[in-house]
Amino acid sequence: MTAFSFDITFKDVHTNARLGIIHTPHGDIETPAFIPVGTQASVKSLTSKEIQDVGTQMFFVNTYHMAMRPGIELVTKLGGLHEFMQWKGPIITDSGGFQVFSLAQKHDEEKNPDLVKITEEGVQFRSHWDGSYHEFTPERSMEYQWSLGSDIHIAFDDCTAYPVSYEAAKASMEHTHRWANRSNIRHKELARERKAQDNPYQALYGSVQGSIYQDLRQESASFIASLDTDGIAIGGVSVGESKEEMYTVLDWVVPRLPEEKPRHLLGVGEFDDMFQAIKHGIDTFDCVQPTRLARAGYVYTRTHASEDRKGYIDINKQLYKEDTRPIDETCSCYTCQTYTRAYLHHLFRVKELLSYRLATIHNLTYIHHLVKQMKEAVQEGTLLELERSWLIL
Amino acid sequence: MTAFSFDITFKDVHTNARLGIIHTPHGDIETPAFIPVGTQASVKSLTSKEIQDVGTQMFFVNTYHMAMRPGIELVTKLGGLHEFMQWKGPIITDSGGFQVFSLAQKHDEEKNPDLVKITEEGVQFRSHWDGSYHEFTPERSMEYQWSLGSDIHIAFDDCTAYPVSYEAAKASMEHTHRWANRSNIRHKELARERKAQDNPYQALYGSVQGSIYQDLRQESASFIASLDTDGIAIGGVSVGESKEEMYTVLDWVVPRLPEEKPRHLLGVGEFDDMFQAIKHGIDTFDCVQPTRLARAGYVYTRTHASEDRKGYIDINKQLYKEDTRPIDETCSCYTCQTYTRAYLHHLFRVKELLSYRLATIHNLTYIHHLVKQMKEAVQEGTLLELERSWLIL
Repeated sequence: MTAFSFDITFKDVHTNARLGIIHTPHGDIETPAFIPVGTQASVKSLTSKEIQDVGTQMFFVNTYHMAMRPGIELVTKLGGLHEFMQWKGPIITDSGGFQVFSLAQKHDEEKNPDLVKITEEGVQFRSHWDGSYHEFTPERSMEYQWSLGSDIHIAFDDCTAYPVSYEAAKASMEHTHRWANRSNIRHKELARERKAQDNPYQALYGSVQGSIYQDLRQESASFIASLDTDGIAIGGVSVGESKEEMYTVLDWVVPRLPEEKPRHLLGVGEFDDMFQAIKHGIDTFDCVQPTRLARAGYVYTRTHASEDRKGYIDINKQLYKEDTRPIDETCSCYTCQTYTRAYLHHLFRVKELLSYRLATIHNLTYIHHLVKQMKEAVQEGTLLELERSWLIL
Repeated sequence: MTAFSFDITFKDVHTNARLGIIHTPHGDIETPAFIPVGTQASVKSLTSKEIQDVGTQMFFVNTYHMAMRPGIELVTKLGGLHEFMQWKGPIITDSGGFQVFSLAQKHDEEKNPDLVKITEEGVQFRSHWDGSYHEFTPERSMEYQWSLGSDIHIAFDDCTAYPVSYEAAKASMEHTHRWANRSNIRHKELARERKAQDNPYQALYGSVQGSIYQDLRQESASFIASLDTDGIAIGGVSVGESKEEMYTVLDWVVPRLPEEKPRHLLGVGEFDDMFQAIKHGIDTFDCVQPTRLARAGYVYTRTHASEDRKGYIDINKQLYKEDTRPIDETCSCYTCQTYTRAYLHHLFRVKELLSYRLATIHNLTYIHHLVKQMKEAVQEGTLLELERSWLIL
């Protein structure tokens, strides 16, 4: 069984972009790569075969959701996430922190604001499903992720709210750092135990926080970089900052990260943000956007061909009622090769289940294809031209 | 382009069962055959490729729904149902009558009971979607079905309510007969017009009514049989009669139907009913049951292996939480070949869109396979044994 490693295969001379291959026990990921989200051990409406067919190399599963339903113990008993979902490729899981701080907190605020408690030890909270009591700690998050059997884990972090004062951001970041240390210690213990049982290695990424404060982001980048982990995740850039702030955070953080470790940007996946991420030297990024937009009937097409130049059209609009073109003329996905906009419009209008799926197949194929084009452009030294032609800057 | 025809290839000596092939311009249907329902021009959550992969030879589309959304004119403009849905096989449509009498009436009763009006001319009603005013007549139903381009049409009928007095059933049946005549006349005019334009022939089935009254059913069977149509549909057996009453109706009706015409039983598809239908000499039958059950998490398995011997299990039950078996050990569908009951249970519990689809793939594959087994049993003279072994009579 291959252990985890990362090879950089090409570096851009015009930007900080780079190409590479992440090797995991469940296969390779050619980077840069978009990572779809399969929150509840399902990439919205797609079978495992389709997840692969649309071009997915790895996807994201949320540890918080697995812990709530069906429960970590059950997934473990059933052979881990790969066996449970019948997915043979790599999987990345998060620490569970982000959802505790968003979902559980949101749920509890309505009833009892005291029900999510953050202590030095960890986070105590109630399930957004049934109100049952749970505690996540750095150690437990590591145990959960090892049990799930994902190929890449993320250190348990304190997901700083936004906006936040400098003092609160600093305290939160320091929390994250202490938790990163504890995550890393427990991760290494578990790695030894598992290795003794002949189980494949599962990688750990530290998580950089620090909100929008330059010295905090720089301190956090340096601290997380100093830990002996397999990769680096950058958190907290998708919780409310403006796009400009996000790019500035990358300016501060990335130069302080070790060249040789893969870098994952959490929660990012809009077209312009992907160009920026890649230009900054990010290797992978995940986002619910393509699948979430698909379910609402927003389907990707080249920016200049879309309404308001957003990069997608709203197929629910009357405009598409008689439109016999595919969603996007250049797209090779099953949906575009088979159905018209008019049929998709009809399915969304009458709320047929097939609608969500055809749109999901399209959006994921489309975004994977776009990232592939970016990858080729990096190699050809034309990333900036591609960006201009795509976004009409 | 092949015109419509029907060949009987085998007759059972033990029962009235028969095997045959219905030839249509869009391909053959080997009978007996189960016909899934794609109400709104979509067989719940499946792509056209999957509809075929699960074993479907022909499916049902509801003319009423097409007339409401997206509208007959639009489907026509977009090239007809086959082009719209990208389905290359045969399609059967109904007259629109049944839905007007159920959906529209139900909708209107709440607001204004006078809004569905039945006259000698036809039915005037308001859309269940937007309240817009519509009128269906036998002539219009024929025009709609020709425009949709379905391979088999059904004559416009007055769908008798249940329960109903003898007098009302008789009046309704007589209505149906006059409308059947008008349907047939308009159908033949349209067939001539279309033929002149080199369009393929689309078949017409007359529709037998008469509720649960022996002389009415017999009279209706004889009358509909006397018309020069391509096949016979038997209506009104799924609107509330008991199973015993349904079988008795078949006893009255089928002997009066011409041997050489294909017979379709409307709205029937439970396991025991399918055995009865085939034993009575029915060739095709349609039902929403497999797709509707699937969406609720009821998945088919052999009767004796199922809860309460219903022929399906409720995958939502805690019982299946850790069950690593496929839904049915003998099933060759994608779902059973890929996923465990435990995973399906999880998807239903967390309401993931994939759940409905995996269950639909299973139920349709399963019912098509069962009908195939029935067909083989007819040929081998073992239909009654198969029925006993299946239903544990």
